Amino acid sequence: MSAAEIKMVRSTAEINRENLEAVLRGRFFYAPAFDLYGGVSGLYDYGPPGCAFQANVIDVWRKHFILEEDMLEVDCTMLTPFEVLKTSGHVDKFSDWMCRDFNTGEIFRADHLVEEVLEARLKGDKEARGLLEDANASAQEDNNKKKRKNKVKQIKAVKLEDDVVKEYEEILAKIDGYSGEELGQLMEKYNVGNPVTGESLEAPRAFNLMFETAIGPSGQLRGFLRPETAQGQFLNFNKLLEFNNSKTPFASASIGKSFRNEISPRAGLLRVREFLMAEIEHFLDPEDKSHPRFAEVKDTKLSFLPREVQQAGSTEPIVMSIGEAVKTKLVDNETLGYFIARIAKFLLTIGVDETKMRFRQHMANEMAHYAADCWDGELKTSYGWIECVGCADRSAYDLTVHSNKTKQKLVVRQKLDTPVEVKKWEIDLTKKLFGPKFRKDAPKVEAYLLNLSQAELKAKSEELKANEKIIFQVDGIEGNLELDGNFITIEERTKTEHVREFVPNVIEPSFGIGRIIYSVFEHSFWNRPEDTARSVLSFPPLVAPSKVLLVPLSNHKDLAPITAQISKLLRAEKIPFKVDDSGVSIGKRYARNDELGTPFGITIDFASIKDGSVTLRERDSTKQVRGSATDIIGAIREITYNGVSWDEGTKDLAPFVSQSETV
Amino acid sequence: MSAAEIKMVRSTAEINRENLEAVLRGRFFYAPAFDLYGGVSGLYDYGPPGCAFQANVIDVWRKHFILEEDMLEVDCTMLTPFEVLKTSGHVDKFSDWMCRDFNTGEIFRADHLVEEVLEARLKGDKEARGLLEDANASAQEDNNKKKRKNKVKQIKAVKLEDDVVKEYEEILAKIDGYSGEELGQLMEKYNVGNPVTGESLEAPRAFNLMFETAIGPSGQLRGFLRPETAQGQFLNFNKLLEFNNSKTPFASASIGKSFRNEISPRAGLLRVREFLMAEIEHFLDPEDKSHPRFAEVKDTKLSFLPREVQQAGSTEPIVMSIGEAVKTKLVDNETLGYFIARIAKFLLTIGVDETKMRFRQHMANEMAHYAADCWDGELKTSYGWIECVGCADRSAYDLTVHSNKTKQKLVVRQKLDTPVEVKKWEIDLTKKLFGPKFRKDAPKVEAYLLNLSQAELKAKSEELKANEKIIFQVDGIEGNLELDGNFITIEERTKTEHVREFVPNVIEPSFGIGRIIYSVFEHSFWNRPEDTARSVLSFPPLVAPSKVLLVPLSNHKDLAPITAQISKLLRAEKIPFKVDDSGVSIGKRYARNDELGTPFGITIDFASIKDGSVTLRERDSTKQVRGSATDIIGAIREITYNGVSWDEGTKDLAPFVSQSETV
Repeated sequence: MSAAEIKMVRSTAEINRENLEAVLRGRFFYAPAFDLYGGVSGLYDYGPPGCAFQANVIDVWRKHFILEEDMLEVDCTMLTPFEVLKTSGHVDKFSDWMCRDFNTGEIFRADHLVEEVLEARLKGDKEARGLLEDANASAQEDNNKKKRKNKVKQIKAVKLEDDVVKEYEEILAKIDGYSGEELGQLMEKYNVGNPVTGESLEAPRAFNLMFETAIGPSGQLRGFLRPETAQGQFLNFNKLLEFNNSKTPFASASIGKSFRNEISPRAGLLRVREFLMAEIEHFLDPEDKSHPRFAEVKDTKLSFLPREVQQAGSTEPIVMSIGEAVKTKLVDNETLGYFIARIAKFLLTIGVDETKMRFRQHMANEMAHYAADCWDGELKTSYGWIECVGCADRSAYDLTVHSNKTKQKLVVRQKLDTPVEVKKWEIDLTKKLFGPKFRKDAPKVEAYLLNLSQAELKAKSEELKANEKIIFQVDGIEGNLELDGNFITIEERTKTEHVREFVPNVIEPSFGIGRIIYSVFEHSFWNRPEDTARSVLSFPPLVAPSKVLLVPLSNHKDLAPITAQISKLLRAEKIPFKVDDSGVSIGKRYARNDELGTPFGITIDFASIKDGSVTLRERDSTKQVRGSATDIIGAIREITYNGVSWDEGTKDLAPFVSQSETV
Repeated sequence: MSAAEIKMVRSTAEINRENLEAVLRGRFFYAPAFDLYGGVSGLYDYGPPGCAFQANVIDVWRKHFILEEDMLEVDCTMLTPFEVLKTSGHVDKFSDWMCRDFNTGEIFRADHLVEEVLEARLKGDKEARGLLEDANASAQEDNNKKKRKNKVKQIKAVKLEDDVVKEYEEILAKIDGYSGEELGQLMEKYNVGNPVTGESLEAPRAFNLMFETAIGPSGQLRGFLRPETAQGQFLNFNKLLEFNNSKTPFASASIGKSFRNEISPRAGLLRVREFLMAEIEHFLDPEDKSHPRFAEVKDTKLSFLPREVQQAGSTEPIVMSIGEAVKTKLVDNETLGYFIARIAKFLLTIGVDETKMRFRQHMANEMAHYAADCWDGELKTSYGWIECVGCADRSAYDLTVHSNKTKQKLVVRQKLDTPVEVKKWEIDLTKKLFGPKFRKDAPKVEAYLLNLSQAELKAKSEELKANEKIIFQVDGIEGNLELDGNFITIEERTKTEHVREFVPNVIEPSFGIGRIIYSVFEHSFWNRPEDTARSVLSFPPLVAPSKVLLVPLSNHKDLAPITAQISKLLRAEKIPFKVDDSGVSIGKRYARNDELGTPFGITIDFASIKDGSVTLRERDSTKQVRGSATDIIGAIREITYNGVSWDEGTKDLAPFVSQSETV
């Protein structure tokens, strides 16, 4: 088969998830963590090939984003004190809605439950109408659903009213955006209860998804495991700005584990409690969101699923260039658009199937209240479309709340070419009166007053005018404090400013590496049509866990020296490889290896001893060519690391009549 | 200065820790985490140069160990259920001794307190005897101690009896090995109390160092953040063995964060609550601890501090080859010795000063009870000798306890060339009686009996003989169960075995990456003798955060095109670099850069525009050479990545008369 034919097979075949998982677990890409102890849901370990694949994906990410754009990488702690996440809003808002079954004690995640129940009813309706087009596909889908351990065990063929079908479909298109109250109403209206017993459940209540712990021996410092790497980057903003010689725009980046205490995680690697993230915080001028390199990406064509389309209950994407999308204001600004295009390019580089990638805009009720715009890079898997990358304009929210809380400035200062006149509220203190009145607390009171924001000064000025005094509280001093016009003067004055000061906005591309990796597993998995028992993981060579399988034809001792010699050549070229001298048939060894996704095989035979030539096999096409070890390794290097195609990379090598691939 | 002279300056100079920290923080190698919020002790963030340095160290580690020895890398979760760490012994034993001051509520770590107080008294004694040799060095040392925020604020010049001095010194040499009770006795005997108030403290009690959390919404699954990566590797043993085609010896490896809830962490990056570890678990036959590559390392000369030397109260190391150390049984076996030598080589590669490295053997009371032998790779810093790498023979302990707890085999099965006769305890069940007696519990009872160990079978056989019945309990079944000889037969039988089954032993090299990094910072730091205000971090080029500073002589626009052109060449060669076109003096830019440890500078001047030549500057010697950009970049590549010396790498380039380095 040609590369194009193989691609078609992979893109169109329905994934048999059970087979894929058998391969991934059998070859130890991953395994449930602690399964010797019965396992803990939502926790997985990566074995050697999974670990190597992950390291390669991270390496590509680092080069594609951090090195290419000169980003400032930081590594911040996962342990995070309560106060920080209280300020960021996570303590109050980072939660999912859970419903408890009063009788059984079972706990359900409300949105997932509604989704599953309505989907099952729609399916039952289709069955009742005799509308299930493809019995095989449906069986496969059922199978996949079953593996997801759905709560809905049985689907009953019950016909629904036409307008109920329409209502269900509209709800499902908006399922990510409902509040707890709305979910409760839906459950009541559509009679969604415990899918096994049919009993109704308690109303949804918020469950905070952060893992809590106590820091230090006294146990008094509450802390959480971070739910994202972003906060660490925001808190270091001043240091990063200084490191960047006070110039903006610039971006910081961080790669590390984050944690979410999911209510009842299923869906394998897609919903886990501990996961690897890679996040970028791009700090820029709120008045200028253009991007100097936007022209380089503007012709990138992508599938968009805008807010309005979803509101209309549709999932039909719009294909257009990112240039067009920004021009028409579908995507809010150039920098957001630039990153969307760069995200797409990264995903394609590591093996995402272009036909299974789309960018979905957040709906108004789904987006954080402070966000200016937000797009999710979604990948299609057997679990449906999965959010794998978020790309949000977080505006100035985070820096502002941390600055307000800590009373420390988190701003950019820009020298103005021409000074400007601005009106500004200012406060003057009659300091000599503060000592006698407040004694040791005087410095605290002064600091509080001098740190009031413009809005606060304006309000206090009005209060002073109206009441001839102001009343306020200061952290660390008990009770209300009062001051009159003898102590303070608050006025709006016209000032000439030579420096512009602003809180930068933040564009945040945020990658769930585990979800991306799992999606690439699905997009890369196929079975050879000539022998459906033989599975292949067609990873791009750049990210494949190992690049070469070195296969001596037999374990005859005469083949050992040349095997050692070629191993040495590969090691010198820093090309990761494995030797398989197990002695089973070549076909079997390659079949095993195709499941590991190793793109190249080098076969060493008795002719190799005489003339130094070896055979190179390509995983997907099973094509073979012959040449000297040096030339073969050169071709591997070019194809793997320099993006050269197989045909181009092997054009000077002799075609080789294939040994049988029969296992 | 020559390279040798610089090395001497660096090795012998007393580190001025305050200056070093000012550089490290000023250049954002690291910063206290959450300092916007006042900070949390024991938590630090790495900024861009620290992060890059760490990534490079990890990269070297991965190549030096994992790739070179074909280890199986895994990535396991940090969240760990209670049961696992109960079995491993961490729940009961992973603790430090803390003492509370009943009056003030202050908490002290007992061993550190004893150490500090006795050290302070010894110092006071020296002062009283007029024995402080070097007033400057002493002032510096005091300064360093102060920065450590010692509890002991003041040192009083009080002469001690000669035998008390000797006792103190002996205690200090053994300080890591005392139990809580012993520490309490020492505190009583030597009157060690709150160093400020002098009041005595509560007796030491154990404080478990693991961070606890709850997994899942019901909060019923207790969990911890892992204190080491090792347990995840042990639990995956069977999968790893299978992945390795059931062959031993083999090693797994893991790089990731671990957590320890330190009592009152000080000492900066050396004692933190969240830290990066790299651990290897080498599984091998307990009857054969030889290593096939030992010959390659046997001549490596190292400084050893054996157990007996420490017991005698001395800290004078013994220098010998690792071959000699294994031969004389100073080091227990070849594999342990092989790893000690490889650890040393790794440390030297990333910039550890050979004169500040030693291997200290654990004392009997300090070593885990199951360990066969244990050596710490220690590095000398201004805080004293610091344990940075542990290299322990953990015997079969971990696999055995997990296997016993989970009743699952964790063994290697080895086909025997000649079968052997062995005596074995076996149990036969009269199965037809089990159903009627135990009903639904029958399978549980049967599984319990069939999983009894050899020792348990022997004991049960004796019990049966003595009492005509056995009494036992089974998990999940209430109360005692009884069986007599009608149900079971237990006999010792002679069997012919074709397979040998054994629990492998484990050699564990375990690296605290953060401590190693900090030690390299200290070992790399020095001031130019001609201008002591100018600090340099002389990192080996291989691990330096950035390799090249690209410096256009001025920010004249004519220099921009060639700067861009050379940037492109460097990017194509994948050499990390930074451009500094800030326009301040060349000397200032290089001085700033020396603090970042960048090994090379490329200066672009107006001659570069004409003939394409540029100047290459070496950080330590400030030597300069001139050549074409291609040749210069070639030299940088050879020196950085292929271990070529400066003299060798630049021998074809023309020496260049240095521009002034004056800042």
